[in-house]
Amino acid sequence: MGPGKAELLEHIRDTGSISAAARRMKMSYRRAWLLVEAMNQCFRQPLVESSKGGVHGGGAQLTSFGEEALARYRAMEAEAYQAVAARMDEFRMLLSGQAPED
Amino acid sequence: MGPGKAELLEHIRDTGSISAAARRMKMSYRRAWLLVEAMNQCFRQPLVESSKGGVHGGGAQLTSFGEEALARYRAMEAEAYQAVAARMDEFRMLLSGQAPED
Repeated sequence: MGPGKAELLEHIRDTGSISAAARRMKMSYRRAWLLVEAMNQCFRQPLVESSKGGVHGGGAQLTSFGEEALARYRAMEAEAYQAVAARMDEFRMLLSGQAPED
Repeated sequence: MGPGKAELLEHIRDTGSISAAARRMKMSYRRAWLLVEAMNQCFRQPLVESSKGGVHGGGAQLTSFGEEALARYRAMEAEAYQAVAARMDEFRMLLSGQAPED
């Protein structure tokens, strides 16, 4: 799992749909579906379960295992950020404060 | 900076060329160049400097500021991983050990 997959899971949880989650991330349905398939295979149990429906239809939900994996990932990420907060502040001093397009 | 930009900087450092770095990352020259431009603008000083040359030519090197930013980023990343090593081991227990294509 990485930031993109975690975000995708959150959007699936919030929208109840892989296609709606894909739209929120400006990602094709196909790509979102492939990411979900990859996650479902990489973990011991599926993270996302789909109910049958029409084309791209039906709904999708996180399984309780998916909720747990997502929560653990986000907790790990938060702890990692906290551990480097001081270094991160130092690093930010290297930035110009300009957006890249300015 | 993120993992992709850090890797791009390392390939530029190792190859002396944005286009060679782009090829190593299977990225278009245009995309690599845009990432470099964005980094050069986002930081107080440029991270990459180019020498003039032909089309996509000339060379590119990290500035000493670029070397410092890259080293700080990698140090921060290593510290973050170390801080969550125990949680990461727990998280790995959730994985099936299967590659997604198996």
